[in-house]
Amino acid sequence: MRIIDQRRLPETFVERDLRTLDEVCDAIRTLAVRGAPAIGVAGAMGLVTVARAFADDDTPGLFRERVLTAAAAIRATRPTAVNLPWAIDRMLLTTATFDDSAHAMLDALRREATAIRDEDRAMCDRIGTHGLSLIPDGARVLTHCNAGALATAGIGTALAPIYLAAEAGRRVEVFVDETRPLLQGSRLTAWELTRAGIPVTVLADNMAASLMRAGRIDLCIVGADRIARNGDVANKVGTYGVAVSAHHHGIPMYVAAPTSTFDPATPNGESIEIEQRNADEVRRGFGVLTAARDAAVYNPAFDVTPAALITAIVSDRGLHRAPYDFAPSASSLAAAVG
Amino acid sequence: MRIIDQRRLPETFVERDLRTLDEVCDAIRTLAVRGAPAIGVAGAMGLVTVARAFADDDTPGLFRERVLTAAAAIRATRPTAVNLPWAIDRMLLTTATFDDSAHAMLDALRREATAIRDEDRAMCDRIGTHGLSLIPDGARVLTHCNAGALATAGIGTALAPIYLAAEAGRRVEVFVDETRPLLQGSRLTAWELTRAGIPVTVLADNMAASLMRAGRIDLCIVGADRIARNGDVANKVGTYGVAVSAHHHGIPMYVAAPTSTFDPATPNGESIEIEQRNADEVRRGFGVLTAARDAAVYNPAFDVTPAALITAIVSDRGLHRAPYDFAPSASSLAAAVG
Repeated sequence: MRIIDQRRLPETFVERDLRTLDEVCDAIRTLAVRGAPAIGVAGAMGLVTVARAFADDDTPGLFRERVLTAAAAIRATRPTAVNLPWAIDRMLLTTATFDDSAHAMLDALRREATAIRDEDRAMCDRIGTHGLSLIPDGARVLTHCNAGALATAGIGTALAPIYLAAEAGRRVEVFVDETRPLLQGSRLTAWELTRAGIPVTVLADNMAASLMRAGRIDLCIVGADRIARNGDVANKVGTYGVAVSAHHHGIPMYVAAPTSTFDPATPNGESIEIEQRNADEVRRGFGVLTAARDAAVYNPAFDVTPAALITAIVSDRGLHRAPYDFAPSASSLAAAVG
Repeated sequence: MRIIDQRRLPETFVERDLRTLDEVCDAIRTLAVRGAPAIGVAGAMGLVTVARAFADDDTPGLFRERVLTAAAAIRATRPTAVNLPWAIDRMLLTTATFDDSAHAMLDALRREATAIRDEDRAMCDRIGTHGLSLIPDGARVLTHCNAGALATAGIGTALAPIYLAAEAGRRVEVFVDETRPLLQGSRLTAWELTRAGIPVTVLADNMAASLMRAGRIDLCIVGADRIARNGDVANKVGTYGVAVSAHHHGIPMYVAAPTSTFDPATPNGESIEIEQRNADEVRRGFGVLTAARDAAVYNPAFDVTPAALITAIVSDRGLHRAPYDFAPSASSLAAAVG
């Protein structure tokens, strides 16, 4: 399994091969691979890679047991995004229906992982299509973090409508928060947009509000790591501040995410577990001491934006507007407009 | 003239001697010394240092001319803070009344610079006293950038009430935005508060809104670089975003600044010139490439917070509340409550 090591961008473009369970878990935990859809795909692909190593030797029962153990380890690497457990559950369901041989189960896992990846690509295209009407010619768009090609197996979620708008010949300009502490905006979003020839301007997170006040932002669009049944959105920390500022300035705030990000089992944002990450990401994130040694650090990976601040949610099923109710039944999703 | 080189904090505590005009200008321009009151004091002290070098050789007329040239160079180092031109103007007024000898003028300059420094110290104490009532026992305070001892010749402006509250035995906890791109919050504010034994937690700028939503901030207090006649405040970029978030959450937003920061000649925030700084502060601020090479960068040093979002302004004259009208006459300032 081959990944782009996103920790090295934009300085260096490095691809790495992951072979063992430790390597797969480590890549997800340390954000070498990141972005909710991408870690779902990476979890599924990673599970195949790991399972391949014991398919030759194990009985079907032992094989399934070892796959379950590996799946639990992969699932535990990051707690907030719903795509990872969702992808892992799909993989495990596949093996549940086989009993003949370890190799038959491995084949089933491989097919399922490939399907998850292909569906992810198609999902990005559909989000792009459904979101295209939000990006008029001349649009000046603010985004936060990276919800682009690097975060998915396709053209991204938040960036998908932007890529398709540019492809359709519309002029689009993107402003991207650098997104402290790990700078996914300035390192990754700016990197992939400049590669695609789309004009992009990087700013420190604290500068977005002044751009909005100056009338230089027409709309905001971000991704999501988990969307509660009522439409509350957990996404990269800082999203909430963007939403509050957009609301204050009367600027539309859009969220783009696959339906696999919708979590009907979570009634609202209050019930979403927020991952707290290592203090050193803030204190010495660039190899130098960037904060006083003895100061405490607050470093949540995500924040929750209440549905009331979200103008619309774009998914692969369409454009969803308030009141949101992402109920477990498929019919409620099909009811989306668009 | 000796300064703490603030660019090296918190990694290293270095004091540097400034001897030439270039060294003085360079120290202010590159933020080795920073903070609106501190650059006023540094500009005045720096002018004395530079003038000393030609007092022995020059006629009174030539001396005054060279002082004027040096003063213009120092004044041009940073455009936004009003304290620097204010201090330089005071210095120049002093020499205008002398005509006897270069040395007499130098003495006058030295006395004036010392007075500016001593007044700055006294000003900090008075801001602290006037702001003390804003910091109750148990207060959890958010601040942005550094408006502390390092930014003044005394105990600071925004931090002065916090220092005095702690001295009075009140429990105070400070949350400080790291303040990208130059991290004055995490490097300087966190450094001086931990040295003073006050509990401090550093966060990335984009995390403040989520802390407010969680009910973990009781009030915000920041400094100012320039305050327009109508109460609009120019301060370190990011202040406006803090104010918008505080407003959204019903949290008081205070600004603490000396009256030398009030600029009656500037009717409102629209007329304040905002310094745009070098793109590399954002693009490679930590010695590594932190943004895609070909992306544009937006890097204003300051933003403007409209008076409507400010709960009160604390100055050395008292506590000012809306409607603000910092008219040129002394009486309007004396009318402040407190």
